[in-house]
Amino acid sequence: MKILAVESSAGPASCALAEEGRILASASVHTGLTHSQTLIPMVDAMLKNAGVLLEEVDLLAVAAGPGSFTGVRIGVAAVKGLAFAKGTPCIGVSTLAAMARVADGLPFDGVVCAAMDARCRQVYTALFDCEGGQISRRTPDEALPLEELEKRLISCNKSIFLVGDGAELCYNTFSARVPGLTLAPPRLQFQQAAGVAAEAAFGAGEAVSADRLQPVYLRLPQAERELRARQAAGTR
Amino acid sequence: MKILAVESSAGPASCALAEEGRILASASVHTGLTHSQTLIPMVDAMLKNAGVLLEEVDLLAVAAGPGSFTGVRIGVAAVKGLAFAKGTPCIGVSTLAAMARVADGLPFDGVVCAAMDARCRQVYTALFDCEGGQISRRTPDEALPLEELEKRLISCNKSIFLVGDGAELCYNTFSARVPGLTLAPPRLQFQQAAGVAAEAAFGAGEAVSADRLQPVYLRLPQAERELRARQAAGTR
Repeated sequence: MKILAVESSAGPASCALAEEGRILASASVHTGLTHSQTLIPMVDAMLKNAGVLLEEVDLLAVAAGPGSFTGVRIGVAAVKGLAFAKGTPCIGVSTLAAMARVADGLPFDGVVCAAMDARCRQVYTALFDCEGGQISRRTPDEALPLEELEKRLISCNKSIFLVGDGAELCYNTFSARVPGLTLAPPRLQFQQAAGVAAEAAFGAGEAVSADRLQPVYLRLPQAERELRARQAAGTR
Repeated sequence: MKILAVESSAGPASCALAEEGRILASASVHTGLTHSQTLIPMVDAMLKNAGVLLEEVDLLAVAAGPGSFTGVRIGVAAVKGLAFAKGTPCIGVSTLAAMARVADGLPFDGVVCAAMDARCRQVYTALFDCEGGQISRRTPDEALPLEELEKRLISCNKSIFLVGDGAELCYNTFSARVPGLTLAPPRLQFQQAAGVAAEAAFGAGEAVSADRLQPVYLRLPQAERELRARQAAGTR
C-alpha cells in the first residue's frame, strides 16, 4: 500500500511516500517560506522524481494537529485537494504521535517526550514509552504549561528523549532539574512526514473520506481566546 | 555556511541543504530509478523550493565512496558539474562515515557498524564509537568478508547499531552469533545526504577544487577483477 504523507504543523514542511514501512521518496523544507507556497510544489516534484502518479497513491496521511493553526489547516486542505480527483481515503494522525515515531526501532529504552511550542509558556505535548524499539502511548495529547510538563518528566524517573519543535525550549527551560534528559539532534528533532506515514500505517487512526478529514486543535485560536477573555472581563 | 550534499552511493539517492548543522531542505528517492535520471532534477527542485540559488551554496559535498561504482561516479560527476559555474569548493567524504552520522546525538553508547553490500559475500564496512552522542572512528573503511566482520563485532563486546544498505544482510547472516546487535529501522538504515553534509561540516575531510575531486574505491571494478583473474589463470 502506497501512503503519501504530509507534515506542515509548524516551521518545517515535509512530504513522504512510503510503502510497507519503507520510504520510497521524501522532501522537506525548513527555510521560513510559507507552507502554502512550498507544500504542493514539493509533493508534485517528489512524485514526479519517484515516477509515481498521484492516482497510484492508496492513502493520504496528514499531521492533523495539534500545531500551528495555519500550518495544520494548510496540510489538511492540501490533502483534501489531493484526495479530490480519485476519492483517495485520508487519515489525520496526531502530530505528536507522528513525531514520536522517530524513536521507532532505536536502541533506546525510556520515554519519548514530543513537545511543540504552543507560545505563552505552554507546549503541546504527549509522552510515549519506548521499550525494545517499540513505541506506545503513555499520555494523551495536551496543552500544558512548561512547569507542569517538568513535574511529569521528573516523576517518570526514566531516560527521556525530547523531540519536536518545542524540544529545545523544554531542554533550555528545565534540563538542569530533570535528570536523564537527551535533546534529539537537529536532524531528528523536527517533525517529519516519514513519521506521519508510519503513524498512519501502524497507529490507531482510521481512514475517512476527504470531506470528513478535520484538523484537531487542543486550544481555541488566539483571536477567540482574546475575545472570550474580553467578554469575561465585561469589556465588550 | 550553506552546504549542498549529494548521496548516490547505492540504491537510494538523496540531496540535502544544510547550514550550521540544520537541514534547510532535503529530498530523497529510493525506487530503483537510475540516479543519472533522478539526482540533478531532485537537487534543482529542492533548491527552488527552498528559495536558494546554486550560487549561494558555499560548499558542495558528496559521498565519494566506497559504494556502487556507477552510483559513486554519478554523485561525483554531478557535484563536479554543480561546482563548475562558480568554482564552488567540493569535498568528498567517506560514504561509511557519513552513514554513521545517523547516530550523532542519539542516546546510545556503543559501536556503530556501517555496512554496504559489496556483493560476493563481502561488505564495505567501518566501525565507529558512539559515546555521549559523539561519533569517532574506530576502524578504517575496508572491504571485508562477512565472516571477518562477524569476528570483529564479537570481539567489540559492546552494543552494536547496524546501519547501511548492507545492514540487513549482516543482521540476517550473523545476528544469532553476535550479541547486542540492533538493526537500524528502515528510516535510518539507508545512506542519507544529511549525513554527508554533517561529515563535510564536522569530519576530517578537506575541501578541494572540482577538478581534484575523486571517487574512492576500495576494490577494483568487477570487470578488472575478472580480467586479472583470467590473466593469472593464463586463460588469456
